[in-house]
Amino acid sequence: MKIDILTLFPEMFTGVFGESILKKAQEKNAVSLNVVNFRNYSTNKHQNVDDYPYGGGAGMVLTPQPIFDAVDELVKDHTRKPRVILMCPQGEKYTQQKAEELAKEDHLIFVCGHYEGYDERIREFVVTDEISIGDFVLTGGELASMVIVDSVVRLLPNVLGNEDSPIKDSHSSGRLEHPHYTRPANFRGMEVPAVLLSGNHQKIENWRERESFRRTFLRRPDLLDLNNLSDREKVWIEEIKKELE
Amino acid sequence: MKIDILTLFPEMFTGVFGESILKKAQEKNAVSLNVVNFRNYSTNKHQNVDDYPYGGGAGMVLTPQPIFDAVDELVKDHTRKPRVILMCPQGEKYTQQKAEELAKEDHLIFVCGHYEGYDERIREFVVTDEISIGDFVLTGGELASMVIVDSVVRLLPNVLGNEDSPIKDSHSSGRLEHPHYTRPANFRGMEVPAVLLSGNHQKIENWRERESFRRTFLRRPDLLDLNNLSDREKVWIEEIKKELE
Repeated sequence: MKIDILTLFPEMFTGVFGESILKKAQEKNAVSLNVVNFRNYSTNKHQNVDDYPYGGGAGMVLTPQPIFDAVDELVKDHTRKPRVILMCPQGEKYTQQKAEELAKEDHLIFVCGHYEGYDERIREFVVTDEISIGDFVLTGGELASMVIVDSVVRLLPNVLGNEDSPIKDSHSSGRLEHPHYTRPANFRGMEVPAVLLSGNHQKIENWRERESFRRTFLRRPDLLDLNNLSDREKVWIEEIKKELE
Repeated sequence: MKIDILTLFPEMFTGVFGESILKKAQEKNAVSLNVVNFRNYSTNKHQNVDDYPYGGGAGMVLTPQPIFDAVDELVKDHTRKPRVILMCPQGEKYTQQKAEELAKEDHLIFVCGHYEGYDERIREFVVTDEISIGDFVLTGGELASMVIVDSVVRLLPNVLGNEDSPIKDSHSSGRLEHPHYTRPANFRGMEVPAVLLSGNHQKIENWRERESFRRTFLRRPDLLDLNNLSDREKVWIEEIKKELE
């Protein structure tokens, strides 16, 4: 997969792209990450990339020219059209399903604004996807694009080794994780639940399933299909309700 | 505000903490950002920070000792208790409201796992807040903590100068932004809407309000109180529905 990032702050990406999974994925040639300062494409003699909004108002708006020209350049050797992703608070909410969808592509281009608005023609004629990572305000699209790159690249074939595999992907299984414990069994007087030290695998599995259900019920009941519970789950709910009384 | 980050990948933070708003905020002494490798607190002779899970299973679990000791050290000169935030997929969903709440604190400590699970005693006895930035899987908590740091620090007094102020904060106003346009009025044949070139401020304001409502209605109707619309908004909805027929 090829990923290009258009940004005015290329230095922001060095730490995240040079460490951990993203570093390994590049070394394994699973992904090529290319950060482009789109100011370099400005034909303006001062290399400006923004201008005042038509109709007045505060703030600046990114002009279409540098972004159109940068994208033209980045797609010219590719036969398949890339996905061009605009990071913006108005976009589609990012989910694991979208990560899985993007992981099937050959070429992604991210367009990151920073403070500025985007000229609407960029949205209409260049961009294929507008994505928001959540209902909060960030200074720019850079961090949001890093989040998406991380979540997509870890899904590519051969990227995650066994040593990197998470205990369990909470949002892949549809339930939240059960609690985990490791040594020491007693740390500053805080003890590990006895069942986990029992060696009884059936009891341990039951405990984990119940705790996973319990945590999901208490924190994210929206992940459960409450009209379609098993008998065991119905009993657990009664027990949990009693605990809370 | 003081922000400490506990991580095993401190290099990941250099780019993001050394640029843009986070750089400026540190220069203005609005925030002190301190990245700590909690491996340095391990009393294990190999400086291990994780171990196998009690009860068996794949993956590794972060042991309590290095994180408890690191937090003890970081809080010892502070009279007020810090918020200790665990980045994890099971946590409370992050929102702008949470950013505003955290921006009132003096001291935040972020605990970032990476692949590993957390020993449950860390959650129970050290952590005050568990936060997830969304329903997607990341390789570690580092990027999620950067997202939160960025969204919180930009709210601190004197951090955002006028030159940095965004066009409009979509999630602060409760509506999505109207489209923006800047020069040229005609770019490769794509034209700016005539009303924005009219100089008629009342018409421009009306157009912007309608387009902001239109975009919100089409993309994020959940942000609108559809049972409590003004007469003007009811007319707009009829017009939008006709457009779509």
